Amino acid sequence: MKLVRYGRPGKEKPGLIDQAGILRDLSSVITDIDANQLSPKALARLSKISPERLPAVRGKPRFGVPVAGVGKFIAIGLNYSDHAAEAGMPLPTEPVIFMKATSCLSGADDPIMLPKGSGKTDWEVELGIVIGTKAQYVTQKEAMECIAGYCVINDVSEREFQLERGPQWDKGKGCDTFGPVGPWLVTTDEVPQPQRLGIWLEVNGERMQDGNTKTMVFSPAKIVSYVSRFMTLMPGDIIATGTPPGVGMGMRPPRFLKPGDVVTLSIDGLGQQQHEVIAYRKG
Amino acid sequence: MKLVRYGRPGKEKPGLIDQAGILRDLSSVITDIDANQLSPKALARLSKISPERLPAVRGKPRFGVPVAGVGKFIAIGLNYSDHAAEAGMPLPTEPVIFMKATSCLSGADDPIMLPKGSGKTDWEVELGIVIGTKAQYVTQKEAMECIAGYCVINDVSEREFQLERGPQWDKGKGCDTFGPVGPWLVTTDEVPQPQRLGIWLEVNGERMQDGNTKTMVFSPAKIVSYVSRFMTLMPGDIIATGTPPGVGMGMRPPRFLKPGDVVTLSIDGLGQQQHEVIAYRKG
Repeated sequence: MKLVRYGRPGKEKPGLIDQAGILRDLSSVITDIDANQLSPKALARLSKISPERLPAVRGKPRFGVPVAGVGKFIAIGLNYSDHAAEAGMPLPTEPVIFMKATSCLSGADDPIMLPKGSGKTDWEVELGIVIGTKAQYVTQKEAMECIAGYCVINDVSEREFQLERGPQWDKGKGCDTFGPVGPWLVTTDEVPQPQRLGIWLEVNGERMQDGNTKTMVFSPAKIVSYVSRFMTLMPGDIIATGTPPGVGMGMRPPRFLKPGDVVTLSIDGLGQQQHEVIAYRKG
Repeated sequence: MKLVRYGRPGKEKPGLIDQAGILRDLSSVITDIDANQLSPKALARLSKISPERLPAVRGKPRFGVPVAGVGKFIAIGLNYSDHAAEAGMPLPTEPVIFMKATSCLSGADDPIMLPKGSGKTDWEVELGIVIGTKAQYVTQKEAMECIAGYCVINDVSEREFQLERGPQWDKGKGCDTFGPVGPWLVTTDEVPQPQRLGIWLEVNGERMQDGNTKTMVFSPAKIVSYVSRFMTLMPGDIIATGTPPGVGMGMRPPRFLKPGDVVTLSIDGLGQQQHEVIAYRKG
């Protein structure tokens, strides 16, 4: 299934994308796509619904974050060997964990707003994991059972805030609009090989990142198992699993986002995001 | 006011502590102490209630985290000059921001559970700030208006996870039970000088940390103003503002927590926490 939350910010309704690509309204079945709807049992119940019996939604509504009430927005650093090289950092021997502020979550086609004083806002297309079942010290095999599905994430990062203002990265990772997620939460049955997915990102139509999840250092199973040793993962938690090479920071000279840029990104089978980059405005 | 949430985990009720130290039930007035109850207006409404008209609560119930639905649990590193020295780290020129997983939040007297494989679990008594009003690029003056109150936090930290497993600290900061908050949320009117508070922590009755918030490098106003440039602070967000000297890591030889230890900590006017340290058990 491809689950979505559509509509204006804060007013999203649950929906799904049917085989023909038509958005269908799920409001008559569930009130929202949240932690309660992500368990294997709840997803199995949803999968029994015939999409053609659900009303088709007219027009082109906005897609919000496909999960409501995200408790933790976790990210893995330097998880593609080539990206670690371009970032000038050693390849980690175990996953690097940092956190994105949940207040940075935004929709798949929402604008990316440059923070005040930002000169180094950068892009990172990433495979996102959505947790469906509480995970605490799980094995890699158990970890796969705890994953509800996958999604596209742009782990937007302000490099000056991240790297030049102290030893911790979180400062450059959680600015408002720095966490576009979606458009879809694609359940695991439709993603049999999460490590065989093409993954790309373009700025103004120019291909910047063009990779495949097969070059990830740590697999989704390994990541969920590993993270669950340090914090209990709860249904609705999201993990961004790292970015392939091609970020602006790695270019010679470095290249960063400016107002008017358009960022487009996608992962095979998980849909596409498109963001207009805008200057700061009071929200 | 001293606001509390009392009762079994996940079943807490709202309450307040009256002038005589008696716990009074607020359930007839509000359903919970959450983001909606932290605005200046909502707090003013609560302050008009005569505590003696509220039912006194019998017995000695558990105190949970005094705010429900914490969206972000932010922490400031190395914010006391002597602690930076004992940690062997340079004094920061601007606040260091990291994040604690919200799943680590626990009550004021709940046990501290050592994670599996932990040999270096350490203590950190800290002044906590509870945000009452959305804060985005606020000045220091505006920042003070955005604070609903203060509380005691133990920023429990596993030093091997934090410092010996890659460059980011979050891994050693968010383990389950690593975020005791409370017992009380004390509103700002009762804390006229947040930078004149004695702050201490004992392990098995031995005084380990014995400081005063006057030696903080960055004040609460500065911290809220600064953090609000990197992420929008929302009502119910909590910020731990750093620890004074005396953590286990800084001792020669270092000293860490073991099952059976009892950790007691307090800040003037904000109440006291007491934790039994226990070995890992499946939750």
